[in-house]
Amino acid sequence: MFTLLKKDKDTRARVGRIKTAQGEIDTPNFGPVGTGGAIKTLATPEVKDAGVQFILSNAYHLCLRPGKDVMKKAGGLHKFMNWPGPIITDSGGYQVFSLAPLRKIKENGVEFQSHIDGSIHFFTPESIIEFQQILGSDIIMVLDECVHYPASRDYVEQSLKLTTDWARRSKNFNDQRRAKKEQQIFGIVQGGTYSDLRRKAVEQLIDIGFDGYAIGGLSVGEPRDLMYEILNVTIPLLPEDKARYLMGVGMPEDIFGAVENGIDIFDCVVPTRNGRNGTAFTGEGRLVIRNADYSKDFKPVDTECNCFCCKNYTRAYIRHLFSIDEILPLRLLSLHNIHFYAKLMENIRKAISKGRFSEFKKEFLKTYNL
Amino acid sequence: MFTLLKKDKDTRARVGRIKTAQGEIDTPNFGPVGTGGAIKTLATPEVKDAGVQFILSNAYHLCLRPGKDVMKKAGGLHKFMNWPGPIITDSGGYQVFSLAPLRKIKENGVEFQSHIDGSIHFFTPESIIEFQQILGSDIIMVLDECVHYPASRDYVEQSLKLTTDWARRSKNFNDQRRAKKEQQIFGIVQGGTYSDLRRKAVEQLIDIGFDGYAIGGLSVGEPRDLMYEILNVTIPLLPEDKARYLMGVGMPEDIFGAVENGIDIFDCVVPTRNGRNGTAFTGEGRLVIRNADYSKDFKPVDTECNCFCCKNYTRAYIRHLFSIDEILPLRLLSLHNIHFYAKLMENIRKAISKGRFSEFKKEFLKTYNL
Repeated sequence: MFTLLKKDKDTRARVGRIKTAQGEIDTPNFGPVGTGGAIKTLATPEVKDAGVQFILSNAYHLCLRPGKDVMKKAGGLHKFMNWPGPIITDSGGYQVFSLAPLRKIKENGVEFQSHIDGSIHFFTPESIIEFQQILGSDIIMVLDECVHYPASRDYVEQSLKLTTDWARRSKNFNDQRRAKKEQQIFGIVQGGTYSDLRRKAVEQLIDIGFDGYAIGGLSVGEPRDLMYEILNVTIPLLPEDKARYLMGVGMPEDIFGAVENGIDIFDCVVPTRNGRNGTAFTGEGRLVIRNADYSKDFKPVDTECNCFCCKNYTRAYIRHLFSIDEILPLRLLSLHNIHFYAKLMENIRKAISKGRFSEFKKEFLKTYNL
Repeated sequence: MFTLLKKDKDTRARVGRIKTAQGEIDTPNFGPVGTGGAIKTLATPEVKDAGVQFILSNAYHLCLRPGKDVMKKAGGLHKFMNWPGPIITDSGGYQVFSLAPLRKIKENGVEFQSHIDGSIHFFTPESIIEFQQILGSDIIMVLDECVHYPASRDYVEQSLKLTTDWARRSKNFNDQRRAKKEQQIFGIVQGGTYSDLRRKAVEQLIDIGFDGYAIGGLSVGEPRDLMYEILNVTIPLLPEDKARYLMGVGMPEDIFGAVENGIDIFDCVVPTRNGRNGTAFTGEGRLVIRNADYSKDFKPVDTECNCFCCKNYTRAYIRHLFSIDEILPLRLLSLHNIHFYAKLMENIRKAISKGRFSEFKKEFLKTYNL
């Protein structure tokens, strides 16, 4: 399902392709986040047109609203949200452990309160896989506990036992009940900031055998150097012929760092959240369009960009829209930002293919950090 | 600038065309409102694609934000907001008399406080025309006092003197300082609910001589019957070879009533405001998409519609988006609604052209009011 097409000569960067039932993902690649079945402010046809190949959605959110019954009747998430490409769904482990106000880990799964209405829910590794099968996700993630930073070794070790047990149950359940043959299932490597626990996690997951491997529990508050250290010790342990997914990352500079370490796919709220806050990504760094500096700047947001926002509107106009509390500019900048990310990933793939990834990284960051 | 193409045999309904520097307006027609230089939630290319021929914007709002200086540097409103078609701008009379917390009518104009930051501003008939010239509006409206309902005869009579005086000064100023030869200027008929004052208003405005005539001071709280009574006595007094504009109207049923009385153009916030509130206009009446009834309804909003919203999304999905507080559905329903209005006006024009306006009205309202 993953094909490795080219390896960089200087770094661990690589170009590949993930085949899914709903189309291919050229890697390295980035997927914007559509947590509740919507990529905030954006309509799916315009996301597709921006060059986006896949999106990430979330079992936790969709299970609470609109719920299993609606998703079943809708015929799955692709139809419900009118997204024709691949969808990865996160299991909800992260959300249960970060959003839910109360939770009890039991032998069989985790009981928690909805962060929306306080109602009590119970997730098991199996129930979450089943729900992702109903969603028709192209890539299903196992239920895991995402440990935040800092966490004691004892806590992480204990948590890893649970995560591994859940991963095994998830895989077994998916093998037996796989709704579509084509649905892939990825394991999630946890282990906090402890190298030996990361190693253990990888070994156990490989033993279970997944279609791809995600690195979870990073970008959760740890120093950036520590994130790279963990990537550096974890990734060489992963099989070369399976896709590697760094969850929840990130900023352009982190994407370069992670690609260099051999990561294939990313998701993050950064482009859409920044767009809604009035910040645009450009080749020359981030522009805070809300600033008064732009009130008479009639250039497009990014002079190098040909997205809908940059083709149609100026910085001055978008700044004006923010100042009168319109919601149109939230969409315009979100759209520009996901376009920027899609283009960035395409350029990264091209650079690796041409054997000039390190030069491209240097060139990009030089202008970006001006 | 206005060409009368066809008169209905049974009613005062008529088909015509207004030529402006930025294109033609086929009448009867409806323009959505872009008060502050933005049609709320919508991007101008999609408004154009929905079949909209003109929009209404507002001198009061644009004068406060972004202000004269930015509008000048932007090269006018068409460029600023990237709207390629005709723009009508309201003078701000309505806003000064409804939004501004404090105002003093002086001989020369009106002093008022901004409803945004309390700053003091002074509008004269001339300064407002000049500002609309800077905006590059295709149709400029004179400064008037829009009297709300109910108002005493004495008050309305006094106010009408001021409005007529301002209308004369506006016309004189525009004749001398017209920035673009093609900018048209419309007078606004006031006179409250007093037939003789309406008559007086019309006679005085015709005496000054405008490119078109708006009926102001209706749909301001008076009973609907009274609105039609005033239209019925006012419109026959207006010259047949000039366009007639009913400001701030309205609902589909009112548009039929006013077209029947000989009105050519309309503007109203109804389609966009309703869209933002979760209500869709359809041939079968208004649908409150937020309702739980629609949670498993996988039909498009309007089965007869081929707009972006109806082509891509279902009622259940849009209802879900409202329930999770996404902003995308505000756009989707606004877009659907302006598409519905554009189509409605097109069908009205066709019906008049074919000599079957009254039948079309009956057919439409029968299904619409089911």
